[in-house]
Amino acid sequence: MASIDACLSVTQKILKQKKTCRKLYSIQHLLSKRNQSSLSQNDPEKYVKPDIDITLCKSTKLNDNVTNILKSCTQIKFGTIFTDHMLKIHYDKHAGGWQKPYITPMEHLSLHPAAKVLHYATEVFEGMKAYKSEHGHMNLFRPELNLQRLNSSAERVGLPAIDSGVLLRGIERLVSIDNEWLPASAPLSLYIRPNLIGTEGTLGVAPTNTALLYVIMCPVGSYFSEKFKSVRLMANPKFARAWPGGCGDFKIGANYATTLYPQEIASKLGCHQMLWLYGEDRQITEVGAMNVFIFYKNQNGEKVLATPALNGMILPGITRQSILELTREWDEFRVEERIFTINELIELNKNNQILEFFGTGTAAVISPVSSILYEDRNIELPTMEQPNPLYARLFKTITDIHYGRVAHPWTRVVDERPHLYESQNYKYAN
Amino acid sequence: MASIDACLSVTQKILKQKKTCRKLYSIQHLLSKRNQSSLSQNDPEKYVKPDIDITLCKSTKLNDNVTNILKSCTQIKFGTIFTDHMLKIHYDKHAGGWQKPYITPMEHLSLHPAAKVLHYATEVFEGMKAYKSEHGHMNLFRPELNLQRLNSSAERVGLPAIDSGVLLRGIERLVSIDNEWLPASAPLSLYIRPNLIGTEGTLGVAPTNTALLYVIMCPVGSYFSEKFKSVRLMANPKFARAWPGGCGDFKIGANYATTLYPQEIASKLGCHQMLWLYGEDRQITEVGAMNVFIFYKNQNGEKVLATPALNGMILPGITRQSILELTREWDEFRVEERIFTINELIELNKNNQILEFFGTGTAAVISPVSSILYEDRNIELPTMEQPNPLYARLFKTITDIHYGRVAHPWTRVVDERPHLYESQNYKYAN
Repeated sequence: MASIDACLSVTQKILKQKKTCRKLYSIQHLLSKRNQSSLSQNDPEKYVKPDIDITLCKSTKLNDNVTNILKSCTQIKFGTIFTDHMLKIHYDKHAGGWQKPYITPMEHLSLHPAAKVLHYATEVFEGMKAYKSEHGHMNLFRPELNLQRLNSSAERVGLPAIDSGVLLRGIERLVSIDNEWLPASAPLSLYIRPNLIGTEGTLGVAPTNTALLYVIMCPVGSYFSEKFKSVRLMANPKFARAWPGGCGDFKIGANYATTLYPQEIASKLGCHQMLWLYGEDRQITEVGAMNVFIFYKNQNGEKVLATPALNGMILPGITRQSILELTREWDEFRVEERIFTINELIELNKNNQILEFFGTGTAAVISPVSSILYEDRNIELPTMEQPNPLYARLFKTITDIHYGRVAHPWTRVVDERPHLYESQNYKYAN
Repeated sequence: MASIDACLSVTQKILKQKKTCRKLYSIQHLLSKRNQSSLSQNDPEKYVKPDIDITLCKSTKLNDNVTNILKSCTQIKFGTIFTDHMLKIHYDKHAGGWQKPYITPMEHLSLHPAAKVLHYATEVFEGMKAYKSEHGHMNLFRPELNLQRLNSSAERVGLPAIDSGVLLRGIERLVSIDNEWLPASAPLSLYIRPNLIGTEGTLGVAPTNTALLYVIMCPVGSYFSEKFKSVRLMANPKFARAWPGGCGDFKIGANYATTLYPQEIASKLGCHQMLWLYGEDRQITEVGAMNVFIFYKNQNGEKVLATPALNGMILPGITRQSILELTREWDEFRVEERIFTINELIELNKNNQILEFFGTGTAAVISPVSSILYEDRNIELPTMEQPNPLYARLFKTITDIHYGRVAHPWTRVVDERPHLYESQNYKYAN
């Protein structure tokens, strides 16, 4: 009941916003208004001290060429096209901590060559997305969970935590300004990358006294705009992604560089991703940079959806958490968080008990797996042969929420109206 | 015998160089020669195509103030003072790979905010030192081992390998130009930090198509200018530095950020460093960012020097390797590379069989350990109570080689005479 009430409240909020949000305050709109000043600092009713400084591009990089690429969204290679602006927030321990956020044209960073991020991987990041609804609103998906995880990752590598509310307001302003990078007609989304780095230019292995949190954005195509494509995995027990007492449950740079070499071996063997195993019993832990789910029939003929439990080696994925919450609410099959070994997978698969095997994450949402190369044997999985697969139903349920086709409490509609105080406080880059 | 011959050959080389190397071509010297051009490109005998471009500072940062700090070398905080110049070598896969090395005034790096190093820890580094001998020469210590390890680390995180000869020549020129940052009278050394980072500005987790190798240098004081100070360790089995199938045996940024949080806990409990344990049997693996040695008497009363074997979780330290080679050459006690658990240490210590426990690495050379905090108990070690401790003998042996007080094949004397072609090819920064 609580959930239905929450949905109704969100629906009402969206409808209300639809009425008031007449015009998106995007970069194009703001550029056209460049010389029109509507509010006065002398009007105390309307002028509020800004909590974010905004300097806009002289002109947007969004031109016909880019727009055409965006429209044919299959051509977009993930993470290669960036929007016009970025958000920056500096931290300086000896100057009171976090400084005032500002939005600036996308630009290179100037870093001391001894900056800790460049030597000791003092870096944590998040991956989130904004989606344009059919009403023209920009939606975020459970952003508070990303920002909570960012702070927990930061603590693990000696970086300072940040006020989630301040960061979220900054991200919303950035999304709002660059929202026209998502053409309403295409199944695109705006990939949002908050990144927090240690900038202190000293060589000691020590926590950093200065840091920079910045947010950049890329328009990205849907992994599955027409039909699902399945992937083939390599499971090689020689490589472990994470371990007890390590950092596998945090979103830190250190967890990624080390995957490139095994990934290269996988690619050479015709596999798309690694299936990460752990321990003597070869537990299934993650797929590439995604969480993993196994849908199968147990000995009693019951359907079970299983995923590795959060035991310190598994990234607490937000898509993972959402799938667990959704399927537990559906209450149509058993849902288990537990250890799942590759031998159990092989055994169940032999007895035709495996139904589906898929990865989950923000980038692809859901990625079905059709086969696993493991110690010179091929494990062929029937994921793509199910008549009404669970993975497709989950994909539709979640993307319907993303694009606001279904009202849901997990959606956060970005308030695209600039706050009153901003109107005349935009600066324009030279 | 081979070793003695090699020593003699090095001694002869040093003596020969002493005669020919009349004047160090340091930054001060080169600045004073700024407007004097002695060689002509039209003289084919003397002009050779340069393999390194050099742009010098307008003026050195070495002034009376800095020189005084350097002389009172205990005040120097590790990694906080940098010399005037840096070496840079760019890599671009689509432009033929590694580009021409160049030396430039120390300056900030301009990086794309999506540069892979900032998100996925695509970074590897080395730590080496240059020492000024009493003859005024600059000595490197087994630099070829550092460069070999750099390339092996690079491969593990999807970074390109570099020609060690080219890099070593570049480092030697850099050391030569900034050699006056080491006052001859003080027990300082020049810490050299080669760092290799992935610079491609795209967000996919993938090997980088562009990279930058750069080298920066810091004058550093001796850890033990007067007498040895011992450290206290925290052994906490909740945290693991490395694991089988991971990357603990490579010098990559990813191994360091993750040590900051445990290190902070150690500091709060009054400990200087972590003693890293691994596995159910709690194997002793490393100390802070150093290798570890245990010197003890076994049941037969024989003295044994033990260090963890290179099993994929231990950094192959160059000081570690040198200590193993030296002590095996001495042949005065048993030398073992093997698994050593904390329970074995506790047991031997109870029976008064432990003699010494110390860490080894480039920064401190040797760091004796006096106590370990482990599960609320204090393990007091007799390291500092030995009359003629092994650690002090090793420290003296190795530093005598470093500073050229003993001729040894591990020493590489930097050729400080600029190559002929360089004389008129210095540019000066504006």
